[in-house]
Amino acid sequence: MEMLRLYDFLPSGNGYKIRLLLTQLGMPFERVEVNILKQETRTPDFLSKNPHGKIPVLEIEPGKYLAESNAILVYLSECTEFLPYDRFLRAQVLQWLFFEQYSHEPFIATSRFWISILGKSEEYHEAIKHKREPGYAALKLMEKHLTAHTFFVNERYTIADIALFAYTHVADEGGFDLTQFPAIQAWIERVKAQPGYISITQESTLCLTSL
Amino acid sequence: MEMLRLYDFLPSGNGYKIRLLLTQLGMPFERVEVNILKQETRTPDFLSKNPHGKIPVLEIEPGKYLAESNAILVYLSECTEFLPYDRFLRAQVLQWLFFEQYSHEPFIATSRFWISILGKSEEYHEAIKHKREPGYAALKLMEKHLTAHTFFVNERYTIADIALFAYTHVADEGGFDLTQFPAIQAWIERVKAQPGYISITQESTLCLTSL
Repeated sequence: MEMLRLYDFLPSGNGYKIRLLLTQLGMPFERVEVNILKQETRTPDFLSKNPHGKIPVLEIEPGKYLAESNAILVYLSECTEFLPYDRFLRAQVLQWLFFEQYSHEPFIATSRFWISILGKSEEYHEAIKHKREPGYAALKLMEKHLTAHTFFVNERYTIADIALFAYTHVADEGGFDLTQFPAIQAWIERVKAQPGYISITQESTLCLTSL
Repeated sequence: MEMLRLYDFLPSGNGYKIRLLLTQLGMPFERVEVNILKQETRTPDFLSKNPHGKIPVLEIEPGKYLAESNAILVYLSECTEFLPYDRFLRAQVLQWLFFEQYSHEPFIATSRFWISILGKSEEYHEAIKHKREPGYAALKLMEKHLTAHTFFVNERYTIADIALFAYTHVADEGGFDLTQFPAIQAWIERVKAQPGYISITQESTLCLTSL
């Protein structure tokens, strides 16, 4: 197999999902930093890779690209311990992946982007305020689930945990207070204790970065 | 196998995705109407089925529930002609499913809900205005793709088409003008020509409704 290439932006939680899984799978990859703050995802060259103009993008072999972080997670985890083989359990993983993209990321990740990546909490004050209620609703649902479960699906660490961990464990950078969610906090520690864990802005030891 | 039961709301595009696929698969199901306008998704009974309080929910066997429309589509289409067997093609289907939930539905479906389901376009005037640009961006991306392709993945009708069709073909009910998108319009006709097609508020001929 060709070496995988990941078009990525180091502070991105969506990029981190892929970096973390690849590292835990022991799959070496080449990481290409694309600075979204400098509109590098809007160049004709990047748009030829992903017409949607977003990172992460996985180049599976030369010219063969896959976008959408959670689709990449499924692609990479098939037939591994990170995705259950049972059809219903696999569907439950997908259920959490869609929950993450629809009901979690647009509120928690977006707030973090404005506050901690752009550093413009004043300018986005009003928009951030509107993200509070739906963001906390997502955290409450996670807390409820994790009060009765060690991980999201089948009491085992899967890509559902990776997808939800990416922006949850840095939710404070988006102004969300996690101290009121003890089950989430305990789960965060369980994820951090997984073999091969790397932190969000840590480059994988398996990766070679091209700048 | 037990008879499948679908908790659904007839005007919902997310519910329609499941109704359409089940009908095209020839799988009979029992449909339970849950009126979201009367907060029927917020009752303790419904929340015991889906803690997230949303339809559609598929009851696969008594007490075994699956939520998130696109996760249900994948669950039902595995090992059928509606989901490719090839790993990369399957990942491309997922890519479009995540695109639909993150970059399409929150703008186009939400506008339709406010304008045509609630009938409150005046009250939501400001919010609707903010949905215009991202909604049209999603349609433009679809138009570009469909200019070169008959269907979203592998030139064949799959659940990627079902997921995107659900709210696209009624985008005008959300105030979006489709006349400027000829490739989308031609694709809509191709979807409507598929065997077993039913329209959005049409109950499946295979379904038994409990009210």
